[in-house]
Amino acid sequence: MFDTVTSDAFQQLRQRAAEVSRYGAAAGLLGWDQETYMPPKGQAARTRQLSALAELIHRLSTGPEVGEWLTQAEADMEAQGWDPDSDAARFLKVARRDYDRATRVPTEWVVEFSRLTSEAKMHWQQARAQKDFRLFAPYLRRIVEMRRQYAEFFAPYDHIYDPLLDGFEPGMKTATVQALFAGLRREQVALLHAILERPQVDDAFLYRPFPVARQKTFVREVLEHMGFDFQRGRLDESAHPFTTGFSVDDVRLTTRYKETDFFGQAFYSSLHEMGHGLYGQGVDPRYEETPLAGGASLGVHESQSRLWENLVGRSRSYLQWLLPRLRDAFPGVLDDVDLDAFYRGVNKVQPSLIRTEADEVTYNLHIMLRMDLEIALLEGRVDVDDLPEVWNRRMEEDLGVRPKDDAEGVLQDIHWAMGALGYFPTYALGNVMSAQIWQALRRDIPDVEAQMQAGRFADLLAWLREHIHRYGRKFEPLEVLQKATGQELQSQPYLDYLRSKYGEIYGL
Amino acid sequence: MFDTVTSDAFQQLRQRAAEVSRYGAAAGLLGWDQETYMPPKGQAARTRQLSALAELIHRLSTGPEVGEWLTQAEADMEAQGWDPDSDAARFLKVARRDYDRATRVPTEWVVEFSRLTSEAKMHWQQARAQKDFRLFAPYLRRIVEMRRQYAEFFAPYDHIYDPLLDGFEPGMKTATVQALFAGLRREQVALLHAILERPQVDDAFLYRPFPVARQKTFVREVLEHMGFDFQRGRLDESAHPFTTGFSVDDVRLTTRYKETDFFGQAFYSSLHEMGHGLYGQGVDPRYEETPLAGGASLGVHESQSRLWENLVGRSRSYLQWLLPRLRDAFPGVLDDVDLDAFYRGVNKVQPSLIRTEADEVTYNLHIMLRMDLEIALLEGRVDVDDLPEVWNRRMEEDLGVRPKDDAEGVLQDIHWAMGALGYFPTYALGNVMSAQIWQALRRDIPDVEAQMQAGRFADLLAWLREHIHRYGRKFEPLEVLQKATGQELQSQPYLDYLRSKYGEIYGL
Repeated sequence: MFDTVTSDAFQQLRQRAAEVSRYGAAAGLLGWDQETYMPPKGQAARTRQLSALAELIHRLSTGPEVGEWLTQAEADMEAQGWDPDSDAARFLKVARRDYDRATRVPTEWVVEFSRLTSEAKMHWQQARAQKDFRLFAPYLRRIVEMRRQYAEFFAPYDHIYDPLLDGFEPGMKTATVQALFAGLRREQVALLHAILERPQVDDAFLYRPFPVARQKTFVREVLEHMGFDFQRGRLDESAHPFTTGFSVDDVRLTTRYKETDFFGQAFYSSLHEMGHGLYGQGVDPRYEETPLAGGASLGVHESQSRLWENLVGRSRSYLQWLLPRLRDAFPGVLDDVDLDAFYRGVNKVQPSLIRTEADEVTYNLHIMLRMDLEIALLEGRVDVDDLPEVWNRRMEEDLGVRPKDDAEGVLQDIHWAMGALGYFPTYALGNVMSAQIWQALRRDIPDVEAQMQAGRFADLLAWLREHIHRYGRKFEPLEVLQKATGQELQSQPYLDYLRSKYGEIYGL
Repeated sequence: MFDTVTSDAFQQLRQRAAEVSRYGAAAGLLGWDQETYMPPKGQAARTRQLSALAELIHRLSTGPEVGEWLTQAEADMEAQGWDPDSDAARFLKVARRDYDRATRVPTEWVVEFSRLTSEAKMHWQQARAQKDFRLFAPYLRRIVEMRRQYAEFFAPYDHIYDPLLDGFEPGMKTATVQALFAGLRREQVALLHAILERPQVDDAFLYRPFPVARQKTFVREVLEHMGFDFQRGRLDESAHPFTTGFSVDDVRLTTRYKETDFFGQAFYSSLHEMGHGLYGQGVDPRYEETPLAGGASLGVHESQSRLWENLVGRSRSYLQWLLPRLRDAFPGVLDDVDLDAFYRGVNKVQPSLIRTEADEVTYNLHIMLRMDLEIALLEGRVDVDDLPEVWNRRMEEDLGVRPKDDAEGVLQDIHWAMGALGYFPTYALGNVMSAQIWQALRRDIPDVEAQMQAGRFADLLAWLREHIHRYGRKFEPLEVLQKATGQELQSQPYLDYLRSKYGEIYGL
């Protein structure tokens, strides 16, 4: 489609974007391999390799020639009167945004930050293994400093957190998120307290032994059945589940297996990553190696992963399809568990220490804690050395549980070691969006529950492809949401969903 | 060690070499992944990614600035009187050689060849699966044409094959190889004929079922015991076993498993690749990311793989250690096989169709066939379309066997699809060198046989590290051989080894 654009400058931009995308894929593979197959001692060389590619990519993305091509292509667009919603016009808009952001940041900063976070990840791993935050603290301190510098590259800003957030969620403002979160927090805490006063759910059967070899086969079959294309993707193992991709035809998920925690580890994390992966596999292939490839934002990405994990995967209809299949694959293990008990079990609400294992009612509270601490660190209101204590206190206040060590507290997530301050809020935004999207999808596919009961996911996936996936980065996150749902971002659908679902489960 | 070199130009070269090495590692990983884990439909994007890196690397290696740095650094060396055998002087020598070779080849040629061979590999795979050479022929024709062009970049030459051979085996001449091979061929054919007149060996027990899961554990344990460092390496699966590396601390082997051919597939190919891998792990770590990293040549590399596979792995002493371990790992499977029968079985001589499965007596004959055909193709004496028939006729003449289809004939190797004309002779050179090296090693470690019987490989590996591995590319292949053995390249030790070993086995 871009071949016919009669602008030399545009074609130059396109060629550069393709080149950058190819090096980006190489960097992506180096990163994937580092988490999946790389031998332990390969780390030092890998760090250098990743830095070299980060530098190259930043240099090619920010050269003055790119700025000239952009200006010229924008003039060509103006002169030729391109439709502002055409792919070519949106290509230019996204490329302009990427360029303006990237040129604010000096290459030296990018290289140093790449080196720092690569080391920080190693030290975070050691600190976590030894449950000792102090081993990681100097690296986090340096990361916070560098992230402050980073924010200054974008001065003036309304809030120091804005430039960071904007890197993950284009166009989103800290004030908007804070307002949204304040309402969510009030309502979710109230719901949690109401739930905790009711008789609690028994989910002990979820922790029965499920042989790992069979877990692997089962998960793969479920994902394939639900629409993940293994001809264009993979599922591997890593310490922390993630999704990455090197083209629309090569999208990779990871998960982890534990015999006595099949659902908490492999099953639901695989559904979650599959949600990301289906998005990755669903982008218009004509956007390959252009600025329009990829997802609209982390929030929109998370809306997809959470939708498949929770709105689908923890729904009664889905479980009605799943349970007999589980019984077949793991003979005898769940014979005494009926659908109602199973549904209640996988939806058990329980304040807990680990974000990735949190239920839907408490999950966002973990996110808000992280966002508040990130802002406090950036603003200098909390010192890195005090972080474990501040974390633990807030956990007690919000959730009534207190980590017994740093590994199950402040060291549990890799994000800060990756330097990804500003990332966490996108998880909660994704939750909120997922309910809005689900509401719209149910309007268009009234019998979606019946389809899920029958194990039919094709219409559901096709709807998401049509309304979200195929657009890639063409539209900004809130535009995508508007187009798919007809609504602004709002928390009501998510709160309604929580209240209705958990009200029924807990008899509120 | 290179930090102290007081030449700005040298330091510039060093920095560029590091950069190129890092991109090379990324390209290497893309290649490794393509053969091990990449989902099938990821191929098209992968081809573009590999081409982009090939172009980048070629451009950075051949820029005029590199030529200027080289000239200036050579002047600095001259003025400062560096020891010509110092690491810095050898760094310059190798860098000069690489630069002079690379600058002969236009970047456009490199990019086109990368694209061609990436496609050719796909079509070779299809052709092989369908046992139909015609599907691959157009690509091979184009590869031969491009390799002819390539040779012309190095004109004048003594032989059109010289520039190709020199790319894999620095300094080696076609005439030298042809003279060496003529002698080998005469002697190996005579030995083969003598063997075929004797009672034949029974090796049927090798094809008994060995459960694949246990094969995997066993191979890994053996490799680890023999000295391969899994903290700095991996063993994966691929259709065709190979070894690659992205640093001295990240060296990767692949193998393949077949329940009813444990020794022909997984076991001996793993020992072979381990030989390459030990070389890769043994290079002086101070050479990392310099032109001195890597192996001296493919021939020297092959001397290491063949040494571990054959001189060690198929020796009676080694098998005396191995057999009880096999019996433990695969209870009952080899109970009726004694050491003598086992030794004779794994050394059975039998003219066969597939090079990688050929015994030591016939192996080089497969190589000579390929080298002769490559030269005939380049010289235009054989047309690509006639290749299957020419191949089959020669197989009948040399080995008395005739492929029943192209898959077990002309399509069996991936090398031509990779564009690697000039590569095959290095396998036979490696065989020849392996026997010379073994002779020298036995002089220095007189009880090496007893050590192997006891499962002790540390002295053996230390000797190879000391005399070969650590030097990386510092010395040219024949220099390495001279330093390690005190000899020129010669076929006598290999022929002596064959005659003595097989004379004993077959009672000649």
